[in-house]
Amino acid sequence: MTRVISIHRDLSASDREHAESFRQSMRDRGTLVVNLMSSPGAGKTSLLVATAERLKHRRRLAVLVGDIATDRDAERLAPWMPAVQLTTGGACHLDHRLVERGYHALADQPLDFLFVENIGNLVCPSSHDLGEHLRVVLLSTTEGDDKPAKYPKAFRTSQALVISKLDLLAHVPFQVEAAIDDARSIRPDLMTFALSALNGTGLDAWCEYLDQQRLKLSSQHAPTNRPR
Amino acid sequence: MTRVISIHRDLSASDREHAESFRQSMRDRGTLVVNLMSSPGAGKTSLLVATAERLKHRRRLAVLVGDIATDRDAERLAPWMPAVQLTTGGACHLDHRLVERGYHALADQPLDFLFVENIGNLVCPSSHDLGEHLRVVLLSTTEGDDKPAKYPKAFRTSQALVISKLDLLAHVPFQVEAAIDDARSIRPDLMTFALSALNGTGLDAWCEYLDQQRLKLSSQHAPTNRPR
Repeated sequence: MTRVISIHRDLSASDREHAESFRQSMRDRGTLVVNLMSSPGAGKTSLLVATAERLKHRRRLAVLVGDIATDRDAERLAPWMPAVQLTTGGACHLDHRLVERGYHALADQPLDFLFVENIGNLVCPSSHDLGEHLRVVLLSTTEGDDKPAKYPKAFRTSQALVISKLDLLAHVPFQVEAAIDDARSIRPDLMTFALSALNGTGLDAWCEYLDQQRLKLSSQHAPTNRPR
Repeated sequence: MTRVISIHRDLSASDREHAESFRQSMRDRGTLVVNLMSSPGAGKTSLLVATAERLKHRRRLAVLVGDIATDRDAERLAPWMPAVQLTTGGACHLDHRLVERGYHALADQPLDFLFVENIGNLVCPSSHDLGEHLRVVLLSTTEGDDKPAKYPKAFRTSQALVISKLDLLAHVPFQVEAAIDDARSIRPDLMTFALSALNGTGLDAWCEYLDQQRLKLSSQHAPTNRPR
């Protein structure tokens, strides 16, 4: 008789530990790690370019750019800050291992902000802790204001919501207040920003928020709000 | 000493057989099954409403609507055709089991077209054969014309590309020809349509294509082009 034994390694516990350890080490270095999630084409790269335009003269920035294929986004971002492309070759989200590898490719240079542009996907990335301090979900005005309730986990696990492409508001059936209400019914303490990376509306408030989050980080002895 | 034996059931082979069997049974009934894939908010539901407006008086239509949460899309579609909501509760794509269950919930009524609106996600759905005859990927003009190369599998496994939200073209940095070239570099025989569900541009050609595909189906003895 042969006994069959199943061995389940608790990979997720090990993953959680690694992500937590990365989060703590980045906090100790004074680097705020920001994970940007959204649908494809919601404007993550454009927001990062507009953010870097405003911050790069006074803050040290770098970005890890997730894509399934191509290095187009890293090419777009490279003129503004050091950019490392993370190509998953098919996987629908980044994980903490890729993020750590990407960070080491930056040769441990001192940073104020490490941005992580996740794969364009409103579903899978929300289940993966990258070791970030701040998780931000983007929703563009062209996607429709009914999306938070339809993709709740992305909104429930984020600390901030950016409504992007505000410049297109006159041309699309999108109510900013309705989207915010929908999102806050999922996570009541969600910070919200409505902005246009194209014409600059709302970008000052967004950049100020980033700076505040970084200051909170260095004054803390415990990790910031960890994504649930 | 204890021996450890791993038993791998070839689930994917069984999945392939089931999807193939559903595809054949639907062909035998004269029902074209159309799987619509896109990012969240690219306009799948709006396209289905506009399509139903044009076809419902002369064709028998029904729709299975995939969402992670809520039944908002099925509610929007119900005035136009029988609609069954498939809620995945977190999963990032539909599978053939859900589709078969949804079809049986329609009580086997005779249909010319069974539309399946997949989860809004340009990644995961492309890896799952639902037993469809026709796979269509939507790309909205607001998402950017660089998306095909960044999400290649969705375009490689589709027979048709619909560029949606053509009414917004004047307001966004999107070149229709560039997007089509990008997509055809991945799949040269991709059929392409550029349309606006809002103002009706391009919808006649799209509906004619659907009718043609259905006629081809009933003249065939073998399954149509199966998604690769």
